Amino acid sequence: PAKLKSRIPRWNIRASEMSKRTLNPIRAIVDGMKIQPNPNKQMIALSIGDPTVFGNLPTDDEVLIAMTEAITSQKFNGYAPSIGYQSSREAVANFYSCPEALLEAKDVILTSGCSQAIELSIGVLCNPGQNILVPCPGFSLYKTLAVSMGIEVKLYNLLPEKSWEVDLKHLESLIDDKTACIIVNNPSNPCGSVFSKSHIQKILAVASRHCVPILADEIYGDMVFPGCTFHAMAPLSADVPILSCGGLAKRWLVPGWRLGWILIHDRSNAFGSEIREGLVKLTQRILGPCTVVQGALESILNKTSQEFYDSTISFLKSNSDICYNALSTVPGLTPIKPSGAMYIMVGIDMERFPEFKNDVEFTERLVTEQSVFCLPATPFEYPDYFRIVVTVPEEMMVEACNRIREFCEQHYDQQIPDLQDLECDK
Amino acid sequence: PAKLKSRIPRWNIRASEMSKRTLNPIRAIVDGMKIQPNPNKQMIALSIGDPTVFGNLPTDDEVLIAMTEAITSQKFNGYAPSIGYQSSREAVANFYSCPEALLEAKDVILTSGCSQAIELSIGVLCNPGQNILVPCPGFSLYKTLAVSMGIEVKLYNLLPEKSWEVDLKHLESLIDDKTACIIVNNPSNPCGSVFSKSHIQKILAVASRHCVPILADEIYGDMVFPGCTFHAMAPLSADVPILSCGGLAKRWLVPGWRLGWILIHDRSNAFGSEIREGLVKLTQRILGPCTVVQGALESILNKTSQEFYDSTISFLKSNSDICYNALSTVPGLTPIKPSGAMYIMVGIDMERFPEFKNDVEFTERLVTEQSVFCLPATPFEYPDYFRIVVTVPEEMMVEACNRIREFCEQHYDQQIPDLQDLECDK
Ligand SMILES: Cc1ncc(COP(=O)(O)O)c(C=O)c1O
Ligand SMILES: Cc1ncc(COP(=O)(O)O)c(C=O)c1O
Repeated sequence: PAKLKSRIPRWNIRASEMSKRTLNPIRAIVDGMKIQPNPNKQMIALSIGDPTVFGNLPTDDEVLIAMTEAITSQKFNGYAPSIGYQSSREAVANFYSCPEALLEAKDVILTSGCSQAIELSIGVLCNPGQNILVPCPGFSLYKTLAVSMGIEVKLYNLLPEKSWEVDLKHLESLIDDKTACIIVNNPSNPCGSVFSKSHIQKILAVASRHCVPILADEIYGDMVFPGCTFHAMAPLSADVPILSCGGLAKRWLVPGWRLGWILIHDRSNAFGSEIREGLVKLTQRILGPCTVVQGALESILNKTSQEFYDSTISFLKSNSDICYNALSTVPGLTPIKPSGAMYIMVGIDMERFPEFKNDVEFTERLVTEQSVFCLPATPFEYPDYFRIVVTVPEEMMVEACNRIREFCEQHYDQQIPDLQDLECDK
Repeated sequence: PAKLKSRIPRWNIRASEMSKRTLNPIRAIVDGMKIQPNPNKQMIALSIGDPTVFGNLPTDDEVLIAMTEAITSQKFNGYAPSIGYQSSREAVANFYSCPEALLEAKDVILTSGCSQAIELSIGVLCNPGQNILVPCPGFSLYKTLAVSMGIEVKLYNLLPEKSWEVDLKHLESLIDDKTACIIVNNPSNPCGSVFSKSHIQKILAVASRHCVPILADEIYGDMVFPGCTFHAMAPLSADVPILSCGGLAKRWLVPGWRLGWILIHDRSNAFGSEIREGLVKLTQRILGPCTVVQGALESILNKTSQEFYDSTISFLKSNSDICYNALSTVPGLTPIKPSGAMYIMVGIDMERFPEFKNDVEFTERLVTEQSVFCLPATPFEYPDYFRIVVTVPEEMMVEACNRIREFCEQHYDQQIPDLQDLECDK
């Protein structure tokens, strides 16, 4: 020890294990890509899940008015309770309450975006060493958060041939004694899929049989195309306790404002006071979302016009149709028809594109040659697909699809014997 | 195992250990107090560290204008980078850069309040099993966060008789191989103290000798009374790497807006890229503070009038003098004169108040009898003191002090032999 004491200390500052474990796969993959557009073609980014970047999808005027009023009132400068103002929580409760899943202010916790809603929900439900079930393909934040907390992630499959329904057998087979929750994301990022009522009931039946609570990521709730209906999970179950996460980001087109919520749908007191209190404690770490947005929330929810919602949806539907129809006839690509949210997943028949090792190389070259950037689906744990965001202006959507066609036609390999021939060879 | 399989599962949802470990001592103690005011006297709350609650301290008009402009511009609805807009980070860097501690945008990370700045700083610097050194008395969030992350907290003493300077010997004695950082809070909550330049240099010398980085909580930076100077830590050290945490909450009087920052002051690359990258990763969990406030930040920092800052300070100074002078002559109380922030700590000579077991009972009865609520200092790990917030309107401050005097005069026990007599008895 004398020796130890006499050693001259040196700076030896290391980043914590937790920070090192906080891995964002989108960044990890995109930052490693060579994104060098073709200088002769203007870049079209179909990669960013932010509907506001092109300015073609402004939020509703009522939303802006509500915010301006909240500021000039000067009533929302001070601290709110860490779970949010009572009146704002009540506004959310009233907005989402329905006879089969009643909500009061006490069932609502306001958070800094849906991201924090998910962080707190995982944080309260799971201990290190437990596991959570996460959709594949799926939004990468679930894994990022869980792994950083020492929670194991098990991926359950979605089935592209069934419009991305859950492989229920697979889901059920993954549940064990250490399963702390099932995350269900509907409508889905990256799939743009929307589950039917009966499919949701089947997912709930699995959760019910094994007594596993559900974290429902419903940030794209109500963002479904005409003819399709969005069913929230909670009203469809009488016994499965559900934390439903949502927020203003997508439907109200203000993702930067960081206003999210957790709706606590308890059933037979399965969450009990413990989960509620645990959530309250977790909110006290950083003290809730911006009070100005909280102050505007009641007006935002109650005054935004139906016309605004409808026109957003009809734009997304129209763009999505343009994209789906165009890519359906491109050799080597298989787009999966979406019903909501703002994404399309497109399968790549990699055998037909022998020049490229995988979806990452495929999308990389699409940038180099055509200046069109689509996100490879590897960060969603789904190689050989890419994701298109359909919020870009229509002309860009059309132009991008044309360029994708040109790219695929140039690289599609006709020579490859098709599968049947291959099998005969054996 | 067959037996296990056949057991019928039951709901058994427990809140995570981490959520249970997230203990907020202020809530734990205040929620357990009987806060029943005297129905004949109007309640005066001197307990809440929110300068906006009484409406007497509005923010500057320029701040409101900046916010309104940020909203109407519609440029700040989308996602910002998770560490904040480049231009907003640059504005903070320019505002705080000085020749001895240069800052560029790359050295600034925007966060959801100073609370998240502290959460991320502890989160990146410390691993479970390590320890951090925290001032006593001190702001309770440090311990709340550290304990939730499995990090040990060691309290270093501040000395009331030396205007709450650090007991440097004690500080140094606590450092061991597992010490990941020293938290220094200047100006201080709950003390209202402001360290001199030479005292800060001595703290830095301790950190330097042992190569321990500093987390400087400077949320009350520049909020010091006329005649006193605020010295940020970073410009005073050439070798100790410092994460300085701050935000808009206190100086700009908008705590609800949740805009904070971390200023990364590296020295000789001791933090290196690892700490920077770790911080970036941690911000990706919930994606930064509200973009509207970020969009307004440059104007808030550059356009707020000097007059506004000065008038806030002169109000705080005047109220603080009223309170200090009044309580100095109250039997059994020893207020410690503050030099900044918005608090005064008041010692209670408990021997003189034998009716009350401790500071919690003392302040509880002060509510019951006089409808004046001061925060007992037990949540700051400092029993036998209470904390007064000096942001209330002047008449309330005066009235509250009168009532405290009346209360103390009623309960002060003249009979108790003083310490000298007691010692003679032995
Ligand atoms: C499925 C899903 N959940 C949650 C989020 C995060 O939402 P927020 O921006 O409100 O944090 C996103 C954002 O893209 C998402 O796609
Ligand atoms: C010393 C200290 N640090 C940090 C904070 C938190 O500041 P914010 O509201 O910006 O999270 C406070 C709030 O009272 C404080 O007193």
